[in-house]
Amino acid sequence: MTYQLYYWPTIQGRGEFVRLALEEAGAAYEDVGRRGDGADFGAVAEVLERAGVAEVPFAPPVLEADGRLISQTANILLYLGRRHGLAPSDEAGELWANQLQLCVTDWVVEIHDTHHPLGPSLYYEEQTAEAARRAAVFRQDRLPKWLGYFEQVLAANPAGDAYLVGDALSHVDLSVFQVVAGLRYAFPRAMVALEPDYPRVVALHDRVAARPAIAAYLDSSRRIPFTEEGIFRHYPALDGEP
Amino acid sequence: MTYQLYYWPTIQGRGEFVRLALEEAGAAYEDVGRRGDGADFGAVAEVLERAGVAEVPFAPPVLEADGRLISQTANILLYLGRRHGLAPSDEAGELWANQLQLCVTDWVVEIHDTHHPLGPSLYYEEQTAEAARRAAVFRQDRLPKWLGYFEQVLAANPAGDAYLVGDALSHVDLSVFQVVAGLRYAFPRAMVALEPDYPRVVALHDRVAARPAIAAYLDSSRRIPFTEEGIFRHYPALDGEP
Repeated sequence: MTYQLYYWPTIQGRGEFVRLALEEAGAAYEDVGRRGDGADFGAVAEVLERAGVAEVPFAPPVLEADGRLISQTANILLYLGRRHGLAPSDEAGELWANQLQLCVTDWVVEIHDTHHPLGPSLYYEEQTAEAARRAAVFRQDRLPKWLGYFEQVLAANPAGDAYLVGDALSHVDLSVFQVVAGLRYAFPRAMVALEPDYPRVVALHDRVAARPAIAAYLDSSRRIPFTEEGIFRHYPALDGEP
Repeated sequence: MTYQLYYWPTIQGRGEFVRLALEEAGAAYEDVGRRGDGADFGAVAEVLERAGVAEVPFAPPVLEADGRLISQTANILLYLGRRHGLAPSDEAGELWANQLQLCVTDWVVEIHDTHHPLGPSLYYEEQTAEAARRAAVFRQDRLPKWLGYFEQVLAANPAGDAYLVGDALSHVDLSVFQVVAGLRYAFPRAMVALEPDYPRVVALHDRVAARPAIAAYLDSSRRIPFTEEGIFRHYPALDGEP
């Protein structure tokens, strides 16, 4: 089976958490919006309006699999985790991985909202003053809190601190890699100052980046660069640049 | 087995989505922070710092069950849904219910952020101007979008529009009930104007409220009133009052 992934073709966005899982799994998938290296926004928009679908998705990413449309990033990763060994196979372990993935979801909302504190309906340029205030609070309070949480989870893992869940890679490790990579892009000054306090999280990022399938993916044209259209945006004013 | 629920004792908050599921299921549970009708914040804070816990929770609500701590509202509902018939038993149906519950999660963040657009680290009183801007956008764009989405899901349900998932009550129906009830409290003017456009969502709210276990719960002292400390806060300025 070839999965169909529907996500905006010019940004990493929330689709990237799914792409990383598919790449690590070596799964056959088509990134529908990027067919032939193009940018087919229409094909992605279409899936939200497809006639006769009972399980209507709210927004991309959407994964078409087994004749169904599956949406919500963490829900897609729950589904893929089971099929590709990217989560423990016992219920307690699967729920623990899901719980951590939902923490990533919350963290990503907070990161997004540093540049969109008034919500997704307005452009960044319409909310720069509010964004500066929110980003300052984020850098000071929330960023250390989240990094510290995942550092604590790694330190508390009875199987060692190589992975977040047990002794094997899971979708959560891939997602935390992506968040760290994105934070380094968006908040380079803040991250340089903070990273020494969270050595396990930094090591996890590096461990994931070095996995053969991930390294090959990051080096390929399938990996879309970070831009100021996605979740992780580098606006110097939001990184505390004077 | 008696579940232990750890959540802040004086607000509905995210814990309420769990309380509603436990009440509907008729499950034995102790609302630890409210032991003896008290308000034991310390007992809730303690669970976040409990020694020797590998599966560290980030924040309440936390459900203690089977000797484990389970956190993240949607994750707790995934767990409870399986055990108490509050989700389909087949994988596709369970994932669909989970997907919708994650939409509720997103919606609740947006509702919360109408009064906290700069994030959870500051008080509302420190961000009233930003809140007024965000709430106006929310009322105009996002509230109709979310209500319209759940209306569409009900209309598209092949089993009829009585429930969101299949032909039986699920945790998602309970959660959408709670959101509608909260929105009526927080945005009474906006909801009076909008509700006629979303008759299936309104009917779902009423159907859930009339269920014997839920009606009994809502009428009991276990149901904490809405207040300006929770997710759903009635600030007239945010409801567009002149």
